[in-house]
Amino acid sequence: MTNAALILIDWQQGFDDHIYWGGNRNNPNAEENALKILDQWRAQNLPIFHCIHNSLDPNSLLRIEKPSGQLKPGFEPRGNEPLIVKNVNSCFIGTDLEDQIKQSKLNNFVICGLTTNHCVSTTTRMAGNLGFDVSLIADACATFDRTGLDGKVIDAETIHQISLANIHNEFCVVRNTVDILG
Amino acid sequence: MTNAALILIDWQQGFDDHIYWGGNRNNPNAEENALKILDQWRAQNLPIFHCIHNSLDPNSLLRIEKPSGQLKPGFEPRGNEPLIVKNVNSCFIGTDLEDQIKQSKLNNFVICGLTTNHCVSTTTRMAGNLGFDVSLIADACATFDRTGLDGKVIDAETIHQISLANIHNEFCVVRNTVDILG
Repeated sequence: MTNAALILIDWQQGFDDHIYWGGNRNNPNAEENALKILDQWRAQNLPIFHCIHNSLDPNSLLRIEKPSGQLKPGFEPRGNEPLIVKNVNSCFIGTDLEDQIKQSKLNNFVICGLTTNHCVSTTTRMAGNLGFDVSLIADACATFDRTGLDGKVIDAETIHQISLANIHNEFCVVRNTVDILG
Repeated sequence: MTNAALILIDWQQGFDDHIYWGGNRNNPNAEENALKILDQWRAQNLPIFHCIHNSLDPNSLLRIEKPSGQLKPGFEPRGNEPLIVKNVNSCFIGTDLEDQIKQSKLNNFVICGLTTNHCVSTTTRMAGNLGFDVSLIADACATFDRTGLDGKVIDAETIHQISLANIHNEFCVVRNTVDILG
């Protein structure tokens, strides 16, 4: 897993309001795992891209002018680490992430972040379709309950697992933090 | 739902080999519903884009030089209806679909096809993020069983429903054929 770019997605404080996002967040260790990966990437001097969401909806918690739009403690970029600001789910739409990655001459990504089924899945699907080799770190992602089309609540862990099953071996390889840290 | 472009995704004969794709396909009426929508689009002289998959894997059933890569009966383009050939899940990557849609000056899509969780979801996510208004027709899509990360089989209908729940009201509005034919 050497020579991969780390893509961190939407580790913003607004996601601490679980009820706003559907409640019952799964995987409470996601932040701890993501920070371990970030530490190792810095120690190895590998490329790190911090992606954050700046919603087009002024009422969203994920607006960069609000405290809730700021990164969670420990996730702030350091030095020259690029901060990519996006307005939609995919980190590749309306940004120069693809150009920046190509300049780094890396074809491998490690992706983690919030939420598994929205920004993480969409970015991973696009990264795979754009020709990149992606490792998605399951235990460094998380999501919330979501209402199904029948009006019944689907629990966050089910959403997380099926979203991962949908993309594993089609757009990416799903791994865990321990596999990456070796 | 007037003035929307219809995007038909991967109605190819190779999907008739259910076992190859995971088995237990849900929604056996998907083709019948999609053909009803196609009929209405033709009757109203609205834009129709036929997208098909030409895999980069020479062993795939979805190769356009094989019988299994051909469109199912009734889904063949007529007249000037564009045929978009893609090599990956998203109909927008490696194709000129976005340019063609922009030339048609339409901002609304109606999407249906195979499979709900792969090419349909990926195309719908990108369409929404690119700024298009998308109606995804649930009962004119289908998918197959898929193995979860724990090695257990997840049934096709569960995959279908959760894949739709993930994108409804975030990238698209999920509807049914009757809502569109209204």
